Amino acid sequence: MVLAPDIAARLKRDRDGLVAAVVRQHDTGEVLMLAWMNDDALARTLATGRATYWSRSRGELWVKGETSGHHQYVKSVALDCDGDALLVSVDQIGPACHTGTRTCFTDELPLGEPL
Amino acid sequence: MVLAPDIAARLKRDRDGLVAAVVRQHDTGEVLMLAWMNDDALARTLATGRATYWSRSRGELWVKGETSGHHQYVKSVALDCDGDALLVSVDQIGPACHTGTRTCFTDELPLGEPL
Repeated sequence: MVLAPDIAARLKRDRDGLVAAVVRQHDTGEVLMLAWMNDDALARTLATGRATYWSRSRGELWVKGETSGHHQYVKSVALDCDGDALLVSVDQIGPACHTGTRTCFTDELPLGEPL
Repeated sequence: MVLAPDIAARLKRDRDGLVAAVVRQHDTGEVLMLAWMNDDALARTLATGRATYWSRSRGELWVKGETSGHHQYVKSVALDCDGDALLVSVDQIGPACHTGTRTCFTDELPLGEPL
């Protein structure tokens, strides 16, 4: 699918043609996962309202929930100031993480200083 | 600064030795920006409680707020399931974005479908 030229012109892609996609639950604001999109994935996400990513490990497009049933219904997509990151607000059905947890960010690292 | 070996072993860095850092305001959950960390930046962030990134454009470490005064005091840091992204919860002083807006994600993209 072809991305609208005015949007494509604002993207700053990495060497693999990708931008980062921060995914959050639209109503609670919980950050669920980080994924990657190429132009095709972003075009499909915007057109269909179903979060679609580029799987770097599998080297293919990936409609979130297609196999797991853990769909992401897209509520809004915003591009950042320098065009290399997207904030995708979704309604997440079930866990976002392939490990079965709601969010992928579960491994808390120790801070060395009192706050 | 040297990152603790047990943390370093869990990172999955890109070709430039970086992991993505999603930055959010700790109390409201607002997603502020996406930045990048190498091992040194993460070690400094954890040790000092001051968000420190690797600037890909300038090719140097960057303590957020050092020149702008828009400091980020780190409340927690979590690693994601596959080790290539961090969620950094901060107390953001002033705007996070160099354009002067609170968050970098201000460019809303049009969705093609009713939700």
